[in-house]
Amino acid sequence: MLSREQLIAEIKKKKSFLCVGLDTDIDKIPEFLKAYPDPIFEFNKRIIDATADLCVAYKPNSAFYEAYGIKGLQALIDTCKYLPKDTLNIIDAKRGDIGNTSDKYARAFFDEAESGMGFDAITVTPYMGNDSVKPYLAYDGKWVIILALTSSVGSKDFQYLQTGDDFLYEAVIKKANTWAGADRIMYVVGATKSTEFTNIRQYAPDNFLLVPGVGAQGGSLEDVCKYGMTKDCGLLVNASRSIIYASNGEDFADAARAEALSLQRQMAEELEKAGVI
Amino acid sequence: MLSREQLIAEIKKKKSFLCVGLDTDIDKIPEFLKAYPDPIFEFNKRIIDATADLCVAYKPNSAFYEAYGIKGLQALIDTCKYLPKDTLNIIDAKRGDIGNTSDKYARAFFDEAESGMGFDAITVTPYMGNDSVKPYLAYDGKWVIILALTSSVGSKDFQYLQTGDDFLYEAVIKKANTWAGADRIMYVVGATKSTEFTNIRQYAPDNFLLVPGVGAQGGSLEDVCKYGMTKDCGLLVNASRSIIYASNGEDFADAARAEALSLQRQMAEELEKAGVI
Repeated sequence: MLSREQLIAEIKKKKSFLCVGLDTDIDKIPEFLKAYPDPIFEFNKRIIDATADLCVAYKPNSAFYEAYGIKGLQALIDTCKYLPKDTLNIIDAKRGDIGNTSDKYARAFFDEAESGMGFDAITVTPYMGNDSVKPYLAYDGKWVIILALTSSVGSKDFQYLQTGDDFLYEAVIKKANTWAGADRIMYVVGATKSTEFTNIRQYAPDNFLLVPGVGAQGGSLEDVCKYGMTKDCGLLVNASRSIIYASNGEDFADAARAEALSLQRQMAEELEKAGVI
Repeated sequence: MLSREQLIAEIKKKKSFLCVGLDTDIDKIPEFLKAYPDPIFEFNKRIIDATADLCVAYKPNSAFYEAYGIKGLQALIDTCKYLPKDTLNIIDAKRGDIGNTSDKYARAFFDEAESGMGFDAITVTPYMGNDSVKPYLAYDGKWVIILALTSSVGSKDFQYLQTGDDFLYEAVIKKANTWAGADRIMYVVGATKSTEFTNIRQYAPDNFLLVPGVGAQGGSLEDVCKYGMTKDCGLLVNASRSIIYASNGEDFADAARAEALSLQRQMAEELEKAGVI
């Protein structure tokens, strides 16, 4: 579990604000791993070993594990336990429900004694309002990462609806800022909208932003940093497919490391440019 | 799996539009069940046996199972397999993500060969737009139940934001109606807002509405029917706690049946009053 201060310290130490997304798909991992009792966990373990000194966060995507029933959940639990203690370990679950149900999801992902999983942070969807956020905040030191502006095509359907002077995603940020501070809440902001970062920084000057969409989805790291970086960095940039599937041969872990290293070096430059380090 | 026509036929046959919510909580089930290898499944099995002729749908709430890790998921899988073939079996999962991730959630809950679970319908949250809905519709005959207006306190945070001439929840219904018809899409509408049903029926004249909030949460069945019922019924009214926790003694299944029967009788009256049967 990392506090805001600890996360910033890790970013400065590693010169990286990389989050490695573990969207592990049995159909995309190297063939030779299928001989192992749990190919998904085996894949994740090697990816983690190869990247842990280059990133400050990991983000397994729950759906990819849930798709395989019991086997998938066991792989997620084992992965959670294997994640380093000095990274921010995020479950990308995008849950959102009423209070008594969010409380159960909080147990599922935060309470290791109940479920086997003790993640540090969870992504949530804001449609049901404060009910979808508050129960997670009851866990001291854990983070809630709220969907604001996503990088998908469907983000246009509702997130850009005008409501008063705001787009819906702006209204979400303004409201959620009343629920907790930048030490407990982050926002998901898609990298394909880099010019929107200027705007978002008006409402969320200090919050960390979790940014998917760099790499495979076409977002530019340079633009994200130009418009979104703060004096404390304030960014976690996620890359999933471009790292974990950099190769599907026996060298996949080395290839993942090379890709993570290339991103980390670009990030170090950006951190220096912005005076964070 | 039930088509729209089959669902309507079941409603007329059983004179019921009751959905029994299986929000099964290990801390609330009768003590004596804890001697069984899987107390949660044992509880659900007896609830299902006691209510199957009185309801047309079951709705396990995924969070309640996920909270217990592997054991919980196994109970959910076993419950799914045990659900009758002539009821609409809904997983209340409120997922919502980008396309490639929604596709994995669809496998998790619809594709029994992959995950062990073959539900007929899933609840989804609309914040990410069409991406959160389309992958489920690729499964022939399966249903997507989209959150529109919920019964929780937090519904006020965003669902009632004014956008153009509409509240956000109205914009959600209008947009989602362009994605598929009333044979594939239902909406969640909280019963605590019964006067809103008149309004919703303007935009969704034929869609089934899944209505939580009757009973424990204070909504009135009569009002829901007055404002929301169509010539085909068009309603699935969910009751969870008021049925499954009607007693926490050895008679819990009988007490659940008595509660379900009382609701079914009120529903039969409403169906007659509206000329559905």
